[in-house]
Amino acid sequence: MSIDYDPQKFYDELVAAGHIYPVGVQGAFGRGPVFERIVDRFNDLVSEIARNDGAETRTYPPVVSRKVIEKNNYLESFPHLCGTVFSFFGKELEGREMARKAAQGETWSEHLKVTDLCLTPAICYPLYPTLKGKLPPGGGLYSLLGWAYRHEPSTEPTRMQSFRMREFIRAGTADQVVEWRDMWLQRGLELLRSLGLNANSDVAADPFFGRGGKMMAQNQREQRLKFEVLIPVISAENPTACCSFNFHQDHFGSKWEIQTADGEVANTACLGFGLERIAMALFKTHGCNVEQWPADVRRRLSI
Amino acid sequence: MSIDYDPQKFYDELVAAGHIYPVGVQGAFGRGPVFERIVDRFNDLVSEIARNDGAETRTYPPVVSRKVIEKNNYLESFPHLCGTVFSFFGKELEGREMARKAAQGETWSEHLKVTDLCLTPAICYPLYPTLKGKLPPGGGLYSLLGWAYRHEPSTEPTRMQSFRMREFIRAGTADQVVEWRDMWLQRGLELLRSLGLNANSDVAADPFFGRGGKMMAQNQREQRLKFEVLIPVISAENPTACCSFNFHQDHFGSKWEIQTADGEVANTACLGFGLERIAMALFKTHGCNVEQWPADVRRRLSI
Repeated sequence: MSIDYDPQKFYDELVAAGHIYPVGVQGAFGRGPVFERIVDRFNDLVSEIARNDGAETRTYPPVVSRKVIEKNNYLESFPHLCGTVFSFFGKELEGREMARKAAQGETWSEHLKVTDLCLTPAICYPLYPTLKGKLPPGGGLYSLLGWAYRHEPSTEPTRMQSFRMREFIRAGTADQVVEWRDMWLQRGLELLRSLGLNANSDVAADPFFGRGGKMMAQNQREQRLKFEVLIPVISAENPTACCSFNFHQDHFGSKWEIQTADGEVANTACLGFGLERIAMALFKTHGCNVEQWPADVRRRLSI
Repeated sequence: MSIDYDPQKFYDELVAAGHIYPVGVQGAFGRGPVFERIVDRFNDLVSEIARNDGAETRTYPPVVSRKVIEKNNYLESFPHLCGTVFSFFGKELEGREMARKAAQGETWSEHLKVTDLCLTPAICYPLYPTLKGKLPPGGGLYSLLGWAYRHEPSTEPTRMQSFRMREFIRAGTADQVVEWRDMWLQRGLELLRSLGLNANSDVAADPFFGRGGKMMAQNQREQRLKFEVLIPVISAENPTACCSFNFHQDHFGSKWEIQTADGEVANTACLGFGLERIAMALFKTHGCNVEQWPADVRRRLSI
């Protein structure tokens, strides 16, 4: 089957099929029931694969302490992606003035001040501070699912401002966490290919900001710290990153005083499945009507 | 069994049992695996009750268009609860300056500007704009689950900044939506009582801002627009609202041009189950160790 790569056409097809609902802001659309069923079932498949790994499960809200953003130096790498929560701290008269401006279409943001919260840019961020101290002898393993925010409005449907990641995080020695990351890279490839997706892995880099960011990206590639699983969704030449597998070395271990059982600074790695992107890859590959999907894919996703 | 009402002690018990994980910001804590299993199972019970109602399911991210907040006049009633997303729009030099300030513990919020997004204060907010036009003959019925934000940091565990609501929304004639709301009030009471909870309903009002808000609250009570199901969690005298049942009259119908099949302005109602509060009510009532819960409650929640 030949695939037609036209981002706007794909977006329109997803809308027409009731898989996404526009909301007037790019990358913040609603998801329909079939889209959600695929997200849920795919997440279940990931859980099945991980069933005997013994991960601790936690769930964090879509907001994270601003102190975590600051301490992780998130703004050095991604100042342009960060979302920060502002609120109103004033009294009644000023509140009325702000409401009047908002009702009349005037700007009202000058009445807001920064709060203690940012939007979570990476699902694993709230976890690290809670790992302070010594890990168990085999290291730590955690499973999270949550909403991430990135300030990058786009007409391209896979580039969302708000989306879900199913993540696992491993903390321990460098060997432990790298071996674990590489095992999951294979698991991820196998899972996605078993759903009929044209998935391939590659060394990758984060979208670091500015000219200085180019060197950081080059460094990350050279050290093979980040891998992605890519699937053609929007373009055949530039496939879309649907999972990422990241070795942080001792970045978080030293910041948050996480130690191995032997008292060394812990290394960490995380991996994430981009749940919306995987659903979109399935729609792109097999079509927007799930009833016409290959029988084995439908069976595997119970859809 | 006599219940000891001490909010700090209850919070500490939830932390000790691994049901919530502090994050250094009030009302933004993580949830442990048993907490989440209860949230999921309770949500499943709600779905079972609603199974034959024919609701359309949608899922929106935890952010909503700022225009929706403005047009719904949210700031007139709740300026103090609203969270607005700010981001960085500058170039490389300013980005570096902002990152330096953040790393050195200086304020950096002056580098941020308002975006097109707010945090969703009520799960149903993104839905109404999509209902513009004529409803089907029997009216509309929608099921949503999402994360809400309210800027009200508190040491009291049931008062969260970020939490989940399972909501249903009905649009149609006034009679249709009020009858539906009252039916769900009974369903909610029965469901919660079947889990051994001391649940009771009462007329209620929203926490409108300032002195002007008192009149709005009084008006809302007199017209019996809002009911809540209350369960003792933090205090025996002031039980905690765990569900709310709201008749909006034609507020959203006229704003968003939603019409009944006959071309009249539609009335709407919504109801929400506060999933975290219900989990906490269960822990408060039956204890933090689910293995010691009454057998019928464990069976009903498959826990």
